Amino acid sequence: MTARLDLEYDGGAFSGWARQPGRRTVQAVLEQALAATGLTVELTVAGRTDAGVHARGQVASHPGQPVAASRLNALLPADLGVVRSTAAPEGFDARRDAFSRLYRYRLLNRPAASPLERGRVLHRSRALDRRALEMCAALLHGRHDFTAFTPTRTDHVRFEREILRAEWVPASAEMLEFWVEANSFMHNMVRVLVGTMLEVATGRRSVEGFGGLLAGRPRSDAGPTAAACGLCLEAVRYDEGDGSPGPPSARHPYPQRRR
Amino acid sequence: MTARLDLEYDGGAFSGWARQPGRRTVQAVLEQALAATGLTVELTVAGRTDAGVHARGQVASHPGQPVAASRLNALLPADLGVVRSTAAPEGFDARRDAFSRLYRYRLLNRPAASPLERGRVLHRSRALDRRALEMCAALLHGRHDFTAFTPTRTDHVRFEREILRAEWVPASAEMLEFWVEANSFMHNMVRVLVGTMLEVATGRRSVEGFGGLLAGRPRSDAGPTAAACGLCLEAVRYDEGDGSPGPPSARHPYPQRRR
Repeated sequence: MTARLDLEYDGGAFSGWARQPGRRTVQAVLEQALAATGLTVELTVAGRTDAGVHARGQVASHPGQPVAASRLNALLPADLGVVRSTAAPEGFDARRDAFSRLYRYRLLNRPAASPLERGRVLHRSRALDRRALEMCAALLHGRHDFTAFTPTRTDHVRFEREILRAEWVPASAEMLEFWVEANSFMHNMVRVLVGTMLEVATGRRSVEGFGGLLAGRPRSDAGPTAAACGLCLEAVRYDEGDGSPGPPSARHPYPQRRR
Repeated sequence: MTARLDLEYDGGAFSGWARQPGRRTVQAVLEQALAATGLTVELTVAGRTDAGVHARGQVASHPGQPVAASRLNALLPADLGVVRSTAAPEGFDARRDAFSRLYRYRLLNRPAASPLERGRVLHRSRALDRRALEMCAALLHGRHDFTAFTPTRTDHVRFEREILRAEWVPASAEMLEFWVEANSFMHNMVRVLVGTMLEVATGRRSVEGFGGLLAGRPRSDAGPTAAACGLCLEAVRYDEGDGSPGPPSARHPYPQRRR
């Protein structure tokens, strides 16, 4: 038997997904809850989120019978929840079988910070060139070498990734959301992409300069790593489907582009 | 001179708006920040929100020159922010001059609670009859006696209120939002409306029974007061306009009804 866990968490108080000695991580807290139900397993996960990164549609798998979500939730803290716990096809592997991951980065662009969105957005008070952000996003489509967008000290072997979708969506007059879907992502990749695009949006870097980074330039050529709190793993897609940017699930529809 | 403050706050750690001895209230914290800038004033507010209720579009006014929002925000805690601080027409009174208030109540209807939305929604795992909710909301339009929807011990004198808009909007497959606009609201009114409509949506009360409560029935005939954390004061409207359910401001558009 293989079980699939659909997870949601507020990453603010976690040192990321992966188990680390002496740190509170999502994997450790979840494996501890599973152990309390009598199931000692090691979880496999679709997206190894960094410290502080949130997830609304994370997926993990483990061998054995699924444990009821309600039973696990009774053992879990308020910032980590099991949305569904279901039986998966024999041999299902949340990481290996994933067709793509979809992330959203939220950016609040107005003079004042937002008390209600604190810890859920990056706040930038300075005016941003939205057209420049859109042009950067358009350059991301397709296969590129993202060496510039992940730390130099890395355990990644391949630096090419295929971007299936990348766009900045205005969620309101003040809120901008960067939605990006790829077959897989490297450590910090979305956050360095956002940090670098923000340099373009404030006139410190050109759109062409940004585009040039996609050919395997060194990390030092790209911009800063944007704050983790703005980032959320929204969904993992397991069926290739027709490749169109349709909803990965009814729960997490892709926003329609507004014009 | 009169100044207008547009405010946003996370109500979770506040004992509501109004100053009370020994309690942390929005009014007290804000007046303290104003005093630290040398301005000792008593604030007038559009919506005296209950303990735990949030606000995204609260409006207050005070005599004197406006103090820069950035200066106030530097003195305010992270759960309370001044979105704008502007000069208002002479004699502007945030409470008296308001044409209407718009509230939103958020309801998450799925088996598991949401770590990312905790403190921002009411979670109900039991299936709800959405059609019944819509029918209840439709009954609210117009002028009614809301005695049943506010505590018996009250300082309200008139119990009639005019509902300009009331509808349940599905924000996603799992999230329902009750948007309600009225000339003014009584203490607990939106929360008792929601608590009572939820009894209809779970079959414990009929739509007709709900409608009958709008004729001045006693509080004991209505349902429970829904949790404060689901409620947010979204906007205050100062111009009567044409009375249509258009946006009170560009920042807080009314959602379009989805079918």
